[in-house]
Amino acid sequence: MATALSRIDPPRQPAKSECRVALVGFGTVGSAVARLLHARRDDHSLRLSHVCNRNIARKKASWIASDIYWTESIQQVLASDAHVVIELMGGMEPAHELVRTALQRGKSVVTANKQLIAHFGPELLELARENQQYLGFGACVAGGVPVLSGLHDGLAGDRIGQIRGILNGTCNYILTRIEQAGMSFEDALREAQQAGFAEADPTDDIDGQDAAAKLAILARVGLKVDVSPRQVVCRSIRNIKALDFEYAHEIGCTVKQISTAKLKGGQAYLAVEPSLVPNGSPLARVAGSQNLVVSTGEFGGETTFGGHGAGGDPTAVAVVSDLLEAARGRSRGIELPDAAVPCEFTTDQEAPHYLRFVVRDRPGIIAALGGALARCHINLDAVLQKPGHAKSALPFVITLEPCRQKQLDSALVEIAKFDFLTEAPVTMPILN
Amino acid sequence: MATALSRIDPPRQPAKSECRVALVGFGTVGSAVARLLHARRDDHSLRLSHVCNRNIARKKASWIASDIYWTESIQQVLASDAHVVIELMGGMEPAHELVRTALQRGKSVVTANKQLIAHFGPELLELARENQQYLGFGACVAGGVPVLSGLHDGLAGDRIGQIRGILNGTCNYILTRIEQAGMSFEDALREAQQAGFAEADPTDDIDGQDAAAKLAILARVGLKVDVSPRQVVCRSIRNIKALDFEYAHEIGCTVKQISTAKLKGGQAYLAVEPSLVPNGSPLARVAGSQNLVVSTGEFGGETTFGGHGAGGDPTAVAVVSDLLEAARGRSRGIELPDAAVPCEFTTDQEAPHYLRFVVRDRPGIIAALGGALARCHINLDAVLQKPGHAKSALPFVITLEPCRQKQLDSALVEIAKFDFLTEAPVTMPILN
Repeated sequence: MATALSRIDPPRQPAKSECRVALVGFGTVGSAVARLLHARRDDHSLRLSHVCNRNIARKKASWIASDIYWTESIQQVLASDAHVVIELMGGMEPAHELVRTALQRGKSVVTANKQLIAHFGPELLELARENQQYLGFGACVAGGVPVLSGLHDGLAGDRIGQIRGILNGTCNYILTRIEQAGMSFEDALREAQQAGFAEADPTDDIDGQDAAAKLAILARVGLKVDVSPRQVVCRSIRNIKALDFEYAHEIGCTVKQISTAKLKGGQAYLAVEPSLVPNGSPLARVAGSQNLVVSTGEFGGETTFGGHGAGGDPTAVAVVSDLLEAARGRSRGIELPDAAVPCEFTTDQEAPHYLRFVVRDRPGIIAALGGALARCHINLDAVLQKPGHAKSALPFVITLEPCRQKQLDSALVEIAKFDFLTEAPVTMPILN
Repeated sequence: MATALSRIDPPRQPAKSECRVALVGFGTVGSAVARLLHARRDDHSLRLSHVCNRNIARKKASWIASDIYWTESIQQVLASDAHVVIELMGGMEPAHELVRTALQRGKSVVTANKQLIAHFGPELLELARENQQYLGFGACVAGGVPVLSGLHDGLAGDRIGQIRGILNGTCNYILTRIEQAGMSFEDALREAQQAGFAEADPTDDIDGQDAAAKLAILARVGLKVDVSPRQVVCRSIRNIKALDFEYAHEIGCTVKQISTAKLKGGQAYLAVEPSLVPNGSPLARVAGSQNLVVSTGEFGGETTFGGHGAGGDPTAVAVVSDLLEAARGRSRGIELPDAAVPCEFTTDQEAPHYLRFVVRDRPGIIAALGGALARCHINLDAVLQKPGHAKSALPFVITLEPCRQKQLDSALVEIAKFDFLTEAPVTMPILN
């Protein structure tokens, strides 16, 4: 087994033998991986030996080497002489079973399956360690942007206190289009689907579960906390309108889906939510389907990692980079710490806030809202109202001085009872 | 020798034994490394065992553990039981001799010495390999920004064609101050020196040799070309004036010291030079002493790495991250390819250009300059002249359509003969 043995060779004898690679899942990323391996065919250390997918007859491409074994059977892959299995099926099962069995049978694994790693990463890394195999998952977060290895290796010497980023290109594309074209959320989503930037069922993207899985992985590796994606607070971008951008611009901000993982004083806070981002922040300038991650370390300060967060080719770069690590036996890949940093998870975070209301106008509305907020000890910062809207559905914005989420939630319970609201208020934290 | 042995242990038995670290050079970075190790003292895998510096009596700090051995003798460090030597002396000798001897005696080495690695990296990496030791030099480029490991590991699967960045915080600080405060280069330099952002002798920073060393290391690791810093074209920022920013703003640009390494069609081009950067580029927004590197890969597209490029604490993060790699024996660190990508080095690059003249005004100047440029087959793009200057020293700008450096150099030879120039023209490429 070249992969396992080479890792325990002394440095003078790196494994020069060929590493056989089985690719399971031949969709956008899978075929990009095959193309990238084809483009690197002069490097004889990697050889694509097996491709596994349903309906292989439909999938076979003419440029793929003729000596590749095509199969529709995962069992054949597991029983094969491949050294590394690339898992690109997505979803939980049978991907989970495939990765477990491959590791148990002495094969290394490279995967781009963020849900699998977010939910079962520690178990699978332990299994990899027991079987002296490599488990690579750099492609799970931010596509081609090498942020996981950056946090794990390049910034290993620091103590990271916060990781914040734009981790979902679909949401960033939709929000960018609402901002640029003044369109509705629904139209922007439809456009994104037509352009191939959003899936037929976009729920996981727009409601935050996709970014939450990536954030949980980032937090495990960077903050060294033991977190499940279920502990990530998720708020949808469904209710964001073009007018939210107009009001955001008024106060020097834009709106982005922001993922934040914070560790301070033994308290961990993880959230994926639409947020107001000041124009001066590098996060404000992330365009289209790009990703950006900003880590903040106690000693190194802010470090940024940016690039293409999705797409076949950039994700294939991350997969093949992991594959090279597996084949060279250079490292054991990302290791979880022996003991996670002990912490308590909180959903109660202090921040200034943006509140957008749509009301049937009548006298006393500001007084009523101000009273409800005051009873929860929340201070108003400003009231913004742009002209040109009908009195029957009048939008306006209140910005709040920093308050805790719990205070705001209490106030919102009271506010929900007011009969002048024509729709539920939209609330977003304002980043500093 | 824990360090060497641990690297050939199988993954199940990671070296848990203490790794003794000798620190040579106790200046800004050295004392930051000691502080960071002190802050990490719960991690018993690393122990600072020796500190070597001149005048140790003056250097001893009260917070440093009392069991550290202080010495003024490099020979004592080399003869000690330290597993890893951190070289933070800077300069060529005796740093070169120290690193060579340490590796030969079976010690791993971590260094922040960019000139040493730029000039002798391949030789020293080979020596490390022969002696089965780790040589870490992540701190040599962009301080705390993990760009070297990002290029070497995270983007290993791609083919990088260009690396471009802002690699010198001193120049960026000086140019930012000229732009913001409209001050002269000399005043901005003096201010930078007083603020601790420029050294007493700033030559290497402002004339480009500092960035050239970093660029050569980036190009070796990222483009896999065998390059010496002497092959990097360097142009100084000394002649940049506040008025260059005024003209740059006119065409939607700013001025930055830009380092570029390009590999295309077997031709490599490396340069450090003041350049016009469009406001939309992330490079335009790099403020103060920050660093940013943008790599462009054939498959992954643009990837950015940004953060604090200098300073004690960020550089210490890079040093300690390498130290952890050395101590854990996780990897062999950065390895140069068995064979460099064959290429020819060129100093002749095609780009649009900015030319700024200061002249004693009289009729026919534009015609004379235009004629000289036309004879070298260079097309003018625009002529810009801002009002409010004396006719005895009148500045104006000509922008050129893309031309080769050789064409421009020929035209400049002819232009230098004109008696209406009151100073040498300033030329800069305009990035796209």
